[in-house]
Amino acid sequence: MHRDPIVQTPSAYSYPLLIKQLLTTARARLPRTEIVYRDRHRFTYAQFTGRVAKLANVLADCGAKPGQTIAVMDWDSHRYLESYFAIPSLGCVIQTVNIRLSPEQILYTLNHAQARIVIVHADMLEMIEAVADKLETAKTFILIDEHGAQPKSRFSFVGEYEALMDKASDQYEFPEFDENAQATTFYTTGTTGLPKGVYYSHRQIVLHAMGLLATFGTAPAQGRVTEADVYMPITPMFHAHAWGWPYAATLLGMKQVYPGRYTPTEVMRWIETEGVTFSHCVPTLLHMILADPDSAKIDFTGRKFLIGGGALPGGLAKAALERGIDIFTGYGMSETGPIATVNHLTAEELKLPIDEQIPLRQRAGRPALMCDVRTVDASMNTLPQDGEALGEVVFRSPWLTQGYHGREEASVELWDGGWLHSNDLGKFMPDATLRICDRVKDVIKTGGEWVSSLDLESLVSRHPAVSEVAAIALKDDKWGERPMILAVLKPGFEGKVSDQDIRAHLMAFVEQKQISKYAVPDRVVFVDAIEKTSVGKLDKKLLRQKYDA
Amino acid sequence: MHRDPIVQTPSAYSYPLLIKQLLTTARARLPRTEIVYRDRHRFTYAQFTGRVAKLANVLADCGAKPGQTIAVMDWDSHRYLESYFAIPSLGCVIQTVNIRLSPEQILYTLNHAQARIVIVHADMLEMIEAVADKLETAKTFILIDEHGAQPKSRFSFVGEYEALMDKASDQYEFPEFDENAQATTFYTTGTTGLPKGVYYSHRQIVLHAMGLLATFGTAPAQGRVTEADVYMPITPMFHAHAWGWPYAATLLGMKQVYPGRYTPTEVMRWIETEGVTFSHCVPTLLHMILADPDSAKIDFTGRKFLIGGGALPGGLAKAALERGIDIFTGYGMSETGPIATVNHLTAEELKLPIDEQIPLRQRAGRPALMCDVRTVDASMNTLPQDGEALGEVVFRSPWLTQGYHGREEASVELWDGGWLHSNDLGKFMPDATLRICDRVKDVIKTGGEWVSSLDLESLVSRHPAVSEVAAIALKDDKWGERPMILAVLKPGFEGKVSDQDIRAHLMAFVEQKQISKYAVPDRVVFVDAIEKTSVGKLDKKLLRQKYDA
Repeated sequence: MHRDPIVQTPSAYSYPLLIKQLLTTARARLPRTEIVYRDRHRFTYAQFTGRVAKLANVLADCGAKPGQTIAVMDWDSHRYLESYFAIPSLGCVIQTVNIRLSPEQILYTLNHAQARIVIVHADMLEMIEAVADKLETAKTFILIDEHGAQPKSRFSFVGEYEALMDKASDQYEFPEFDENAQATTFYTTGTTGLPKGVYYSHRQIVLHAMGLLATFGTAPAQGRVTEADVYMPITPMFHAHAWGWPYAATLLGMKQVYPGRYTPTEVMRWIETEGVTFSHCVPTLLHMILADPDSAKIDFTGRKFLIGGGALPGGLAKAALERGIDIFTGYGMSETGPIATVNHLTAEELKLPIDEQIPLRQRAGRPALMCDVRTVDASMNTLPQDGEALGEVVFRSPWLTQGYHGREEASVELWDGGWLHSNDLGKFMPDATLRICDRVKDVIKTGGEWVSSLDLESLVSRHPAVSEVAAIALKDDKWGERPMILAVLKPGFEGKVSDQDIRAHLMAFVEQKQISKYAVPDRVVFVDAIEKTSVGKLDKKLLRQKYDA
Repeated sequence: MHRDPIVQTPSAYSYPLLIKQLLTTARARLPRTEIVYRDRHRFTYAQFTGRVAKLANVLADCGAKPGQTIAVMDWDSHRYLESYFAIPSLGCVIQTVNIRLSPEQILYTLNHAQARIVIVHADMLEMIEAVADKLETAKTFILIDEHGAQPKSRFSFVGEYEALMDKASDQYEFPEFDENAQATTFYTTGTTGLPKGVYYSHRQIVLHAMGLLATFGTAPAQGRVTEADVYMPITPMFHAHAWGWPYAATLLGMKQVYPGRYTPTEVMRWIETEGVTFSHCVPTLLHMILADPDSAKIDFTGRKFLIGGGALPGGLAKAALERGIDIFTGYGMSETGPIATVNHLTAEELKLPIDEQIPLRQRAGRPALMCDVRTVDASMNTLPQDGEALGEVVFRSPWLTQGYHGREEASVELWDGGWLHSNDLGKFMPDATLRICDRVKDVIKTGGEWVSSLDLESLVSRHPAVSEVAAIALKDDKWGERPMILAVLKPGFEGKVSDQDIRAHLMAFVEQKQISKYAVPDRVVFVDAIEKTSVGKLDKKLLRQKYDA
C-alpha cells in the first residue's frame, strides 16, 4: 500500500540516521568525559571528536573517495573507535579485518571487499606482507607504530597513524547522504567454505545503538547500563562492531576504556584503575581471566559482564557469581547487528541463591526492543511460548544484514521466507525467555531423541575438576548418534578424575530429570586443550572429524 | 553527496519504522502485563493488541481509507491508546483533538485536518454538536458512552465504541507502507492567530519512543525509567501524544494506567492502588494535586514526576521534594516531538540538601540522545556553553515536525536557517545543562537589562504564603518596561501579606545576587485566580492586555 511521505518545509532538516549523528549528543552533553587507551592516551569527548575529524582529513589526503572500502587491522583501541566514526562519515566503508584468520583468508576478504586503504598495526604487518603480491585493490597503507619500532616493510607507508594525526586539522565538515548507504563490512568465519561478508548501513548502526541503550537502560533490575557506567570491550572490535557497544557508548557519552593488545593481568588492571563496570566477551575469555592467579586480587563485585558468542557454561556462571560478577547473557549473530535477545534477570530472580540463578543466567533472554524473534517449525509456522516446542530461531529487526556481499545463494538461504535464519534450535519459555538448545548441526540425535550438546557441556562444566569441555555427536550404528565428551581438567586434577566420575556426575542430573539418560555419553576423553575457531568458539566440526573414526 | 543504498536480498525484510512495530516486543516480552483504565477495565498486552486489531476492523468497516484523518475526542483512556495504534497502522492519520478549545476552534481544526471519522466521548458531544452544520468532511461518528447514558444526539452514530469492539475480530493484518507517511496531527494553541497543525510520521514517532527509552533508561542516577515502572499520564493525550510516553511505555511493555476524566482524589487513588511510579504533567496540575487536602494521606515517596509544558516554580519543586516526590523537568514543544532536553540529576547533585536541589531541578537539563540543541545569536552562530551567553534555543532531532499543515509562511519561519526555532531564550551552563530564561516575547526588558519573568515567578513562589504567581512586563516611559507581579495567596493568608512583604522577599535574593535590583517589581497585585490558556499555561498575553493600561 502506497502512502505519501509527510510534507517537508524546504528549509526543514530531516535528520538522516548517519553515524556522524552519534557524536552530536556526547560532545554536547559530556564534553569532559574521557576515552582511555591503556596507560598511553586519554582524550575527552571534545578532543575525541576533533580526532575523528583529523582522521577524516588524513584519509581524504590519502585519496579516500565516497563508496571506497578502508580496512583496519588493529587491537581494540581509540584508533579503532576513531575509524568506526571517521571512515563511514566520509561516505566510505570500514572493513574490520579479522586478524585471527590465516593470511590467505585475510587476503581473500581484503580483495573481496575491494579495500583501497589499509590501516595496519605493526604487530599485524607480517601477515599482510605475506600475501602482499596478491592484493588486488589495496595500494595505500597507514602504519600504526605505537612502540616506535619503525619496522622494515615492503610497503611504502603514507605515514604513521599518530604522526599523521598530529599534522591534520581537527575540523571536517562531514557530508550528508542516504542513511541506507553502507557503513561497515566484516567477514563471518563459518567452519565451512569461504568467509562471507556481512554489511551494515548507517541507519542500521544508529538504530542498533539506540536499541542497545533503550533495551539495556530500561532493564527491570539486573544488568542495567547507564551513563554512569565505565565501558571496556574485551571482545575484538573487528567482530560485529564489538557487539555495537562502542557506538552505543559514544552516543551515550560513557567513559570508555580500550585495552589494546592485552594480557589477562592488564585487563584486570584497567578494570581496577579505570573503574570499569561494564564489559562483554565470549565465555572463554572470562574463563581465562578468572583462571589467572592475579584475578584473586581484584574486587569484581557488581561489575557487569555481558556474555555472548557462545553458550555460558554453568561452571563459569557459578565461578563468576561467586566472585561477585554480575554475569548475564545476550544472543545474536554476526548477521543480526548483533543484538537480538538479552537476558536481564528480574528483581525476584535476583533474590534466589546462586545455584538457582545459574540456569536463569544461562538463558538467551527476551527479545531486545524492536526485535521480532521467533521459533518456527519447518513450514515457518510460529511456535508457541510454552517451554516445549523446539524450533529454529528466526529474526526480524531494524538492524539485520540484508545479505552476504556478492553471495547470492547464501543470501537467499539466510533470508528464506522473509526471516533471517539462525540455524539455532531454541524454545521460548512461558515467561517469554528464549533458551537456545543447540546449533542445528551440533545437536546430538540419539535413539530418536535430541540431546543438546550445550546442555551437556554446561552440566559437565559444573564438575569441580573440569576446566573446559566439549560435547559432540559420534556416528553410531545402533542409535544413529551418541554423545562424546572431551574435557580439560584443572591443574592438579590430571589423572585423579576418571571417565566414570564424569558419568556419575551426569547421572545425578538424570535423577533430577534435567537430562535424559540417553544424554549420558559412553565416551569421556581427557585432553590438554580443545580446538577452537578463530573467534574462540569450540570447533565442533573439526572435533567430529577427529574423533568420528 | 550521493551514496547508493545497501544491496538488499529480495526476500530480506528491511523493517520500516512503523507504529505497528512498537507492539511487537511488548506482546512477545511481557504478554501478561496490564493496561488499566480506572476501576473499569484491565487488559493484558496480549488482549490489548487484540483490541487494536478490533478497532482497526471497526474503522475499516466504517469506510476508513489510507490517508484519511480520523479524529479522537476523549479523556486519557485505553481507547485513546488503542486509537494511537490502530488509526496510523491502518495507514490513516489520527487527529488528537484539543477539547479545551472553543467549539469554533475545534470546528476549524476538524475541517482543516479534513477529519472523516470522529470518535467522540459523550461528555464532549455538546461542543461538536454546536458546530455540526459547519463540519465539512466529518460524516461518520462513533460514540463513546461509557456510562450508558444513551445521549440524544443529532448525529446518527455507527455505534458505541465498546459495543462495536465486542463484535469485531481481534485479527487484522496491518499493511506495510512508507515509514515517512503521516501518522498523527494535532493543533498548537498559540495565543495569536488560528491554531496551527503540526504533524508526525510513523518513523518520527518510533524514533521518539526509542529516544525516550534510551535517554530516560540510561540516566546516571535520578529519574531513570525502567520496565519495572508503572506509568500513568496526567497530561492530556490530545497534546503532543502525551509527550510520546504512551508509545514508549507500550514499546517497553510497562504497566500503564489511564485515569479517564479524573478528580485529584482519583488520580491519587490510582497512584496508590495501581502503584504508579512514573507520571508527567504541567506544573499547575501537580500544584492542584498537592494542594488537595486528600494528598496528605498519600505516600509519594520515590514516585517520579516529570514536569514540562511550563517552567517548574521553585515553590512547587520544594513542596514536591518535601513530600518525597522525585520531581524533574523536561523541555520541548508541540513542534519537537516533544522531547528535546531532560534534566536528570547526577548522584552528586542528589546528595545536596533540598533547598540546594531546587535550582538544579528547575534546569531544562541536557539534550536528549540524538538531539542537537543549541543556543544561537541573531545571525545563527552557536553560542558557547559558558553560563553567560543568552540566545534563542534551536533544534535538530530525528522527530521534529517538518512544518505546519498548509501554513507555508509560519513553516518557513519555524525552520528559518535549517533549525527549528523555539522562540525561547536560554543559556547553556558549563556542565552542559540548558536553562530557559524566558519566552522571547515574555522577557522583561527594563533599563537595558533583561529580567526573566520565569525567574521572578519562581522566586516569588517560594514565599510561604504564595500559591500561584505570574510576572509580566508593563510598558514604562522611563525604563522601557517594568515587571509586575500577580499573586494568588494560599487559603488563610488573604489580607495578611502585603506587596511590601513580597518585595522584601525578593530583596533577599537581590542580596544573594540571584537577581538584580531592577528585577524587583514596583507593583504587586493579589488576585483570586490567574488567567490561563487552554493547555493550562499562564496567559501572559491576556494579562499584559489587562494590566497594561
